[in-house]
Amino acid sequence: MRVHVALSPAEFPEAPLSGRTALAIDVLRATSAAVAACEAGCHRLVAVADAEAAEAFAAADGADTVRAGERGGEPLTGFDLGNSPAEFTAESVGRRTVVLTTTNGTAAMLAASGAAAAGLAALTNVSAAARWALAEGRDVSILCAGDSGALSLEDVVCAGLLVAHLSGSGVTTLSEGAATALALGRYYGGRLDRLAEASPWARRLARQGRGADVAACLRADVSDVVPVFAAGGFVPQRVASSGLAVARPEGGS
Amino acid sequence: MRVHVALSPAEFPEAPLSGRTALAIDVLRATSAAVAACEAGCHRLVAVADAEAAEAFAAADGADTVRAGERGGEPLTGFDLGNSPAEFTAESVGRRTVVLTTTNGTAAMLAASGAAAAGLAALTNVSAAARWALAEGRDVSILCAGDSGALSLEDVVCAGLLVAHLSGSGVTTLSEGAATALALGRYYGGRLDRLAEASPWARRLARQGRGADVAACLRADVSDVVPVFAAGGFVPQRVASSGLAVARPEGGS
Repeated sequence: MRVHVALSPAEFPEAPLSGRTALAIDVLRATSAAVAACEAGCHRLVAVADAEAAEAFAAADGADTVRAGERGGEPLTGFDLGNSPAEFTAESVGRRTVVLTTTNGTAAMLAASGAAAAGLAALTNVSAAARWALAEGRDVSILCAGDSGALSLEDVVCAGLLVAHLSGSGVTTLSEGAATALALGRYYGGRLDRLAEASPWARRLARQGRGADVAACLRADVSDVVPVFAAGGFVPQRVASSGLAVARPEGGS
Repeated sequence: MRVHVALSPAEFPEAPLSGRTALAIDVLRATSAAVAACEAGCHRLVAVADAEAAEAFAAADGADTVRAGERGGEPLTGFDLGNSPAEFTAESVGRRTVVLTTTNGTAAMLAASGAAAAGLAALTNVSAAARWALAEGRDVSILCAGDSGALSLEDVVCAGLLVAHLSGSGVTTLSEGAATALALGRYYGGRLDRLAEASPWARRLARQGRGADVAACLRADVSDVVPVFAAGGFVPQRVASSGLAVARPEGGS
């Protein structure tokens, strides 16, 4: 298996996607929110580029669609939800479609959806996301959403933990980016609490009063659900620790 | 030789300094400015914690002292210079003492000066700084100044390039932080231009109109001068590529 990591959005154009499994990461907070939405039993999660596209999608999709998103860490005016994982509950999103647009995360999600298979990874589901990618059996490309084009430490650490999982299962060829992410994953993986102070973006969110979100997102493996791209949206797929993908947790169609 | 790297200021308290050579790094921009000041022939550079301490030092030291500093990337009101490397010229600082206080850099400089020997490293003098540390013959601790307590990518990349130099010269034992920095140094070392977009702090400075400073600081080995701590300040020491420390470039005392 070959594993590639794009450490920041500037590297997306070089990331090989054809015939591969892609994982998009935006730990703070888009993919963590997506995992929370899937845990809460949403029907599917659709990533769009901007607020206008989100409104258009919601108008076409029907009254039951939940509009969620932020820019610069603040919720979008008039939307149903921001992108705090805590907002995605069974009450707010259960059995409903969520349309999501965020500063950094949705671009990575949209880029990933050009691969043969695409899933969303966060620290909260990192082992499940790795198991899912392994079960898919293809080479893997990991896209770190970053922060306004720059590298985000917590995304690269999450990528490194994915690389560690993937390379633990057999002979793996790592790109330079994957080897670099692996080093950061090894360094911070066992002390995720340190990321809250080491990551500039985590500190900025904390200064905006979102420290609880930061703490919630910097936890490993609290979920075994992976949002997996299918027919235009990401749908919840629970991936048991046996490595076998099992049925979706909620009854959706 | 053992090499330790503190990736961010939160790790300074754990950094071993006793009996070691320490290198402080603040690529954007304090140590790059210090290298520029030394290249421009300053007499010595004194790091202090804040503007009040800088004023007190200048008042005690005499009329010829240059007060330089910034907070949040902006020059300090009433000071002679900010911390743009371009401001440190033979005209502004030649044969004079510079007292410097900056958001991130001076704390790392002050911490480093508690070691058996202390020098300042930037990308602009990275090979010279490594040669100096090698010639000192002790174990080495490298302190990355970061950005307001968080990790700064460009500082860690510079640390990684120092680690590569130091480990290239013989058997070296790397701390986990040093191994992590080495990976980032390998990744970005050959493409420093990418740091301008990958580093959140570089992007913020560029947005503040300081893109020329960013470009000037993200160049490797344009100087072979190392600011070395002696008697309360950092004094210029030119380190030829033979590895031997030679006399100070300007005639100072």
